[in-house]
Amino acid sequence: MKPDLEKALKLYLVTDPVLHGGRGVSATCEEALAAGVRFVQLRDKKASTRSLYDSALALRNLCKKNSSYFVVNERIDVAMAVGADGVHLGQSDMPADIARSVMGSEAIIGVSVRTVEEAEKAMEDGADYIAANLVFSTNTKKDIKEPLGLNMVSTLSGVSSLPLIAIGGINPENTALVMDAGCAGVAVVTAIMNADSPTLEVEKFLKILNH
Amino acid sequence: MKPDLEKALKLYLVTDPVLHGGRGVSATCEEALAAGVRFVQLRDKKASTRSLYDSALALRNLCKKNSSYFVVNERIDVAMAVGADGVHLGQSDMPADIARSVMGSEAIIGVSVRTVEEAEKAMEDGADYIAANLVFSTNTKKDIKEPLGLNMVSTLSGVSSLPLIAIGGINPENTALVMDAGCAGVAVVTAIMNADSPTLEVEKFLKILNH
Repeated sequence: MKPDLEKALKLYLVTDPVLHGGRGVSATCEEALAAGVRFVQLRDKKASTRSLYDSALALRNLCKKNSSYFVVNERIDVAMAVGADGVHLGQSDMPADIARSVMGSEAIIGVSVRTVEEAEKAMEDGADYIAANLVFSTNTKKDIKEPLGLNMVSTLSGVSSLPLIAIGGINPENTALVMDAGCAGVAVVTAIMNADSPTLEVEKFLKILNH
Repeated sequence: MKPDLEKALKLYLVTDPVLHGGRGVSATCEEALAAGVRFVQLRDKKASTRSLYDSALALRNLCKKNSSYFVVNERIDVAMAVGADGVHLGQSDMPADIARSVMGSEAIIGVSVRTVEEAEKAMEDGADYIAANLVFSTNTKKDIKEPLGLNMVSTLSGVSSLPLIAIGGINPENTALVMDAGCAGVAVVTAIMNADSPTLEVEKFLKILNH
């Protein structure tokens, strides 16, 4: 049985098609799931639909076996095709209310936000959680945005009735800071995906998050 | 009321985000629909999901008003979100049988094929029509494929129990040739989208197709 959504959101793994320590996405996720990750988002902006579908199917199975949530970045069609738990949407993706009407009430819908207005819109639209994107600077995302910083995270957390997670440049060193700023969890790409040992890295994060 | 699918497939308009004679996609489609086009595919490989959704919503409304079929290239999610009639899938898009299971039995699903095997797979998967892609050389598609030529069109038409349409470099001069090779219709991008007068161009095509 899957844990409560809010509990699962504490440590939220986002995949990367390139940064996976040479192990591949599936093997890295498998290790992270075994170490205690309970929420995985498949993110690959460049894959063909067919190849994204194949990756999604493999990760859906892995997550199912590990009683973990699995969502697909942006692609509602791929999420539905593989029976994922939901999608994660950016501001240039499908509007969340439309995603909700296509996917139904059970789907988990997350929305990346950078402003109070975007957070309020996500709540109105029926999102299940929001992600402050991005909190610290990072090399993962090519479309570099200005980091929001911890003050903005506090502001977003103050207005949001939904769980707020932090994404962008998150590592074990700054995790306590973003949690103190009001986050329900941290979304991690590089620090886990590209770690020498995803197991040890997940354990480091969980130790801080469960403290 | 929409015409029979097979009748509508005779002249199948594929949009292009750049080639539209400076009129814009919507205005060009409006003209083409007024002149008698009854099948429109929205194709824009580079748009964000949000922007594709907006374009799809506009074209869906235009097509509805003109009793025309409307499908979206590749994106099942966008097609479902705007209530399009269906999708058109390439070989690196979602497998057609999966698309069918996500979209339901009423959706119109088209599949681009280049070989007898791909045509047979599309039939097995429950496609409604197939498209021989591409028949003649063209500048529209950046991922240049070798043109199939008329002999291959005849071969595909010979094995297919589904309507076969021809795409790639179609113009009023070669339309009779592809119809003689067994096609149920022609899919046109540039010749109509980028025409000085889409109305006159549609009329030229329809004159040949209804001959």
